[in-house]
Amino acid sequence: MGNCCESAANFFGPQKNTNMRVSLPAVCFVWQIAMIVLFGVFIRYDEESDAHWIEYRRENNITSDIENDFYFRYPSFQDVHVMIFVGFGFLMTFLKRYSYGGVGFNFLIAAFGLQWALLMQGWFHALNPETGKITIGVESLINADFCCAGSLIAFGALLGKVSPVQTLVVALFGVTLFAVEEYIILDLLHCRDAGGSMVIHCFGGYYGLAISWVLYRPNLHLSKRHHGSIYHSDLFAMIGTLYLWMYWPSFNSAITDHGDGQHRTAINTYLALASSVLTTVALSSMHQKRGKLDMVHIQNATLAGGVAMGTAAEFMITPYGALIVGFCMGIISTFGYLYISPFLEKTLKLQDTCGVHNLHAVPGMLGGFIGAIVAAAASESVYGREGLINTFDFEGEFADRTPGTQGGFQAAGTCVSIAFGLVGGAIVGFILRFPIWGDPGDDNCFDDEVYWELPEDEETVPPVLEYNNHMIHKQQEISESNFSVEQS
Amino acid sequence: MGNCCESAANFFGPQKNTNMRVSLPAVCFVWQIAMIVLFGVFIRYDEESDAHWIEYRRENNITSDIENDFYFRYPSFQDVHVMIFVGFGFLMTFLKRYSYGGVGFNFLIAAFGLQWALLMQGWFHALNPETGKITIGVESLINADFCCAGSLIAFGALLGKVSPVQTLVVALFGVTLFAVEEYIILDLLHCRDAGGSMVIHCFGGYYGLAISWVLYRPNLHLSKRHHGSIYHSDLFAMIGTLYLWMYWPSFNSAITDHGDGQHRTAINTYLALASSVLTTVALSSMHQKRGKLDMVHIQNATLAGGVAMGTAAEFMITPYGALIVGFCMGIISTFGYLYISPFLEKTLKLQDTCGVHNLHAVPGMLGGFIGAIVAAAASESVYGREGLINTFDFEGEFADRTPGTQGGFQAAGTCVSIAFGLVGGAIVGFILRFPIWGDPGDDNCFDDEVYWELPEDEETVPPVLEYNNHMIHKQQEISESNFSVEQS
Amino acid sequence: MGNCCESAANFFGPQKNTNMRVSLPAVCFVWQIAMIVLFGVFIRYDEESDAHWIEYRRENNITSDIENDFYFRYPSFQDVHVMIFVGFGFLMTFLKRYSYGGVGFNFLIAAFGLQWALLMQGWFHALNPETGKITIGVESLINADFCCAGSLIAFGALLGKVSPVQTLVVALFGVTLFAVEEYIILDLLHCRDAGGSMVIHCFGGYYGLAISWVLYRPNLHLSKRHHGSIYHSDLFAMIGTLYLWMYWPSFNSAITDHGDGQHRTAINTYLALASSVLTTVALSSMHQKRGKLDMVHIQNATLAGGVAMGTAAEFMITPYGALIVGFCMGIISTFGYLYISPFLEKTLKLQDTCGVHNLHAVPGMLGGFIGAIVAAAASESVYGREGLINTFDFEGEFADRTPGTQGGFQAAGTCVSIAFGLVGGAIVGFILRFPIWGDPGDDNCFDDEVYWELPEDEETVPPVLEYNNHMIHKQQEISESNFSVEQS
Repeated sequence: MGNCCESAANFFGPQKNTNMRVSLPAVCFVWQIAMIVLFGVFIRYDEESDAHWIEYRRENNITSDIENDFYFRYPSFQDVHVMIFVGFGFLMTFLKRYSYGGVGFNFLIAAFGLQWALLMQGWFHALNPETGKITIGVESLINADFCCAGSLIAFGALLGKVSPVQTLVVALFGVTLFAVEEYIILDLLHCRDAGGSMVIHCFGGYYGLAISWVLYRPNLHLSKRHHGSIYHSDLFAMIGTLYLWMYWPSFNSAITDHGDGQHRTAINTYLALASSVLTTVALSSMHQKRGKLDMVHIQNATLAGGVAMGTAAEFMITPYGALIVGFCMGIISTFGYLYISPFLEKTLKLQDTCGVHNLHAVPGMLGGFIGAIVAAAASESVYGREGLINTFDFEGEFADRTPGTQGGFQAAGTCVSIAFGLVGGAIVGFILRFPIWGDPGDDNCFDDEVYWELPEDEETVPPVLEYNNHMIHKQQEISESNFSVEQS
Repeated sequence: MGNCCESAANFFGPQKNTNMRVSLPAVCFVWQIAMIVLFGVFIRYDEESDAHWIEYRRENNITSDIENDFYFRYPSFQDVHVMIFVGFGFLMTFLKRYSYGGVGFNFLIAAFGLQWALLMQGWFHALNPETGKITIGVESLINADFCCAGSLIAFGALLGKVSPVQTLVVALFGVTLFAVEEYIILDLLHCRDAGGSMVIHCFGGYYGLAISWVLYRPNLHLSKRHHGSIYHSDLFAMIGTLYLWMYWPSFNSAITDHGDGQHRTAINTYLALASSVLTTVALSSMHQKRGKLDMVHIQNATLAGGVAMGTAAEFMITPYGALIVGFCMGIISTFGYLYISPFLEKTLKLQDTCGVHNLHAVPGMLGGFIGAIVAAAASESVYGREGLINTFDFEGEFADRTPGTQGGFQAAGTCVSIAFGLVGGAIVGFILRFPIWGDPGDDNCFDDEVYWELPEDEETVPPVLEYNNHMIHKQQEISESNFSVEQS
Repeated sequence: MGNCCESAANFFGPQKNTNMRVSLPAVCFVWQIAMIVLFGVFIRYDEESDAHWIEYRRENNITSDIENDFYFRYPSFQDVHVMIFVGFGFLMTFLKRYSYGGVGFNFLIAAFGLQWALLMQGWFHALNPETGKITIGVESLINADFCCAGSLIAFGALLGKVSPVQTLVVALFGVTLFAVEEYIILDLLHCRDAGGSMVIHCFGGYYGLAISWVLYRPNLHLSKRHHGSIYHSDLFAMIGTLYLWMYWPSFNSAITDHGDGQHRTAINTYLALASSVLTTVALSSMHQKRGKLDMVHIQNATLAGGVAMGTAAEFMITPYGALIVGFCMGIISTFGYLYISPFLEKTLKLQDTCGVHNLHAVPGMLGGFIGAIVAAAASESVYGREGLINTFDFEGEFADRTPGTQGGFQAAGTCVSIAFGLVGGAIVGFILRFPIWGDPGDDNCFDDEVYWELPEDEETVPPVLEYNNHMIHKQQEISESNFSVEQS
């Protein structure tokens, strides 16, 4: 099989150099050593994870260890962690010969990105100006996972077309851009976006799409043989889908306010997700001439309700409001997979392997605007006086903000995230076009063979068929020669 | 392959119409719109998930946000959620060509059913007579998941033999019946059944069996080629098994009393499950002439201990009592798979794809009676005076109940659940016999081809063999013609 | 295929008797009945899971049910539970034809071992001298799971080469030895080892290696055809890897101190794991001539950071200290897979199927020594006066211990665990050499066929190729005879 690939490559020109032996280890080592140094200079435990907690607790009249933020957030953190590594990871195993790359590079990007995220987010949000140190706790870990999610979404658009070193470049810039846009949106504009419709999904989606657009491969059809799923690869991908779907209420509620904030966010997300399953199934079935369902839609569009509730889920959107959001998002996302993606590929030359446009970019953007509308509609009668202040954090310099103004800022925040995604992605895309990154040739995409040592006995069918066809051909030749011998 | 199926169908009469293009989208849309309207009229956040919580907390002297029920129950909720979607879903992927249907329709049923469950259970348990509203919180989400479990169990008996629209009908009636029998058992009879041996497993099992009995297919042997597992489909099913097994302590303890109630339930369930693994392995090995283990038993009967502890786990059954329950259930369930299921299929014409009779119906029923016995044996010396009142909720109009009486009511509750399952299932079965639901023909069962768009390059062996045989035959013909040419 | 194996066996002498029909059920039944009797005599609920809790709570001025240890530890317990059954289980599915054995026997060992662990650990740690009873709660369940982990690690070294009865013997002695060494290390030497670098990983690793060394099979190359992975078996193994990786922070923090203890442990483990991913990738890529990654390293060495932080994670190792540990462990573990394991197999005759030497034995041992160094370096200025006492439990008879002394005892504890592993393993190995256990022949290892009823239609490629080659040969013979007919 290796031979066959190489000969195909030779046919279309010299094969690209995909040797990672120097660049990948170099990047990993340099990066990890830099992290150690920077962590040594900057990162310390916060008061809740430091051994001085026992004294801190007494001084602050905290009655019990259970008041430690760990117990409020750790279960949600673990759910988010599963979404990042198993959810995103297995969702990207759907390609027949790129499952190692899907789950493995996802693992690499996230482990690489979360360290940089702790630093970047720390500098912007948790730097103690006196000591010059960043202090971290369980909420920082959740935020670091969130920050990686943006880059993993971008990776979804590039799946199968980039080298591992390129994925690390995507993560490096992705995390950096994320921290900046998050600072602008959450701190400067004082938006609320606990589940990250804007800062995670909208940004990550457009970031990935912009990169992919710059990296357009006109001859990608040469890799067509690997561009599809097989029965069991789609089943592996369902593991990813289901973990994303089930744990999304934890994703959106992981860093919302203690008490009713986390509680309400989980309920709203749960309902929106249920609703988007039904409209996804409906649209998927309507499209096929015999009403058959398409795994691509079930794997992806069912999640759109969770994406779109990332901003509004902590507001009093009401349970039926959550159902309506899920209803619309299931339709919009499935519609995107059916019509928009092929259209974008044809007209805009946009190759989006996982369809992040339909699952993250658009639902994230709409989620930002839904959040703006729900925020603008907030009132003291619905939230209670204290509830309103609490939910939107109308305190300090923002004490005189009205819900209407807040809505405007939320909408502005969404635009910021789109701008950061598109501009940042375009720049990163150009950086990735330098011919030094070891990306695969157009005829060699979506193939684990390039970056992974594969087991010798392969199980997939195509090589078997090839082998047998080969034997049968040989056999035919024998028969034919046989035939000719006879005739002579 | 499509051609071959069709020709087979033609041989046995006109193929059934399995086109879902109108009915499935119609049901999904109508249902989801109805849900939005009903949620709009009825469903609101409860005081712990409403933005007024901050005021409610102060008024009720709740000292900390950690007292919000969210923190008592959310981790268990997420475990239950995983059991419903990954546990049940992947357990049903064991068939070689129905894995999409197993995990996909399970997903659809649950997302469809949980919305209806919030309404049905709300009307019976959480309707505020003054406002006319149902208020929901994390406990409602757990109950909604539980309610779906009944219908998913029923789906296990029907796996591969029904259309997606039929599964939705099963869920619609299943959730409705569940809410009514639950109201009778928990509210009117005042039974305790936190883990649902009676209301979930016993009801769900008999409900599914009754439907399957009415839908008997005399010619199901025509689908024999798809009725079995392959190596990797059994491994996917083990994902489901293990998640059910591991999280069952959360299932049984999710809605038990705060404090010792949840704690004790988890311990008892953990022990019963461990014990049933050993007796399942023992019996499975004893049955085979070389002592080999059967994956069907490992996948299913190991879970019977958890099913049977659904009622008694919150009582003071003692740790060794839990082990005894698991011991017996592993034996009974494996015995069921070995002898009872084949017997029922032969004599009662009962086709039970997943063997829910042995995993849910019988262990659930026995669990109900075990609960009755343990309740009847309760005493103040074991529970403490307050503990007894607390555990059995002997308060209000039930203040003068004795453990003995309670035991009688528990037993009566089990009978109610069986009756609801059998009668309800029979009625739903007759409804599903109308020739309008698009179910597959007898020769077309257990086949994802019917309701799913499958990847073109299939990986399973039979088509490969077929293809090769085809080539070899062709080749043989050439040789033979060759031979005849010679001879002439 | 069965036939082919049998004929191969005949070729190398009489096939071993692998019939489990008597021994496996006998062991399971006897054991489970013994457990029921012993639990009946010894095991009771502790005060937090007993129905008297409501009175206990009042008497001890516990203000809320949320103070029940259940709410501090249950989420971590469930994560540990997943690691034991899905993590270890699926990690061992990587062999192409031993996935059932990997996940199935792992399930059996753990369910068998955890009951014995509750007793053994109870006798040593939780026996009430007045009542003669052991009381159990959620922390006991976590410890029982931990105790099984030691035996599961040992099973990793033996994977594919032992019978199910032998695995139970390994677990029986493994749990017993574990409880004794744990008592010596934690109680007598007063070491801290919450995440078990010493008591779990170091002990379990050397225990398994010693057994494997005694059971050396000189003709194991006869099973070479099954000794490897296929594409999808490696993907199943990644499920195990990722769950171990994600939940390791819960593993290490599950039984550390409430409050800052659990919080800090989770952060440190999270960081060490992230760091070891990067160095694993770097080394794996450096080794291959085209820089390709090896799934064996990604599946295993990425976890070494978690293993090595089992002791030190609860100390104030600092975030960058955690990164450094992970950095080194990724390198050491990958290096082990590349060079040490082949060397040990060649020189020491050590057959270590899963490479537990590189993932558990060495990182566990080093983790013990790292813990010793970090403990010795502890100071009041870093921990605070109370924090130091609290973290190292310098109370009662250990009130006058200094950090320096503690470091010495920690190092001694590591040596104890190695000694127990090696000596205990050697003894168990000799016991397992008696020819009564039904282990497979040298030509029959790594094959599920021996102990599992497999589906008839196998999906793997080799039989297909065999079948086709057979047909093609037949065909060739026809052609050849054809040819000869002609010529005559």
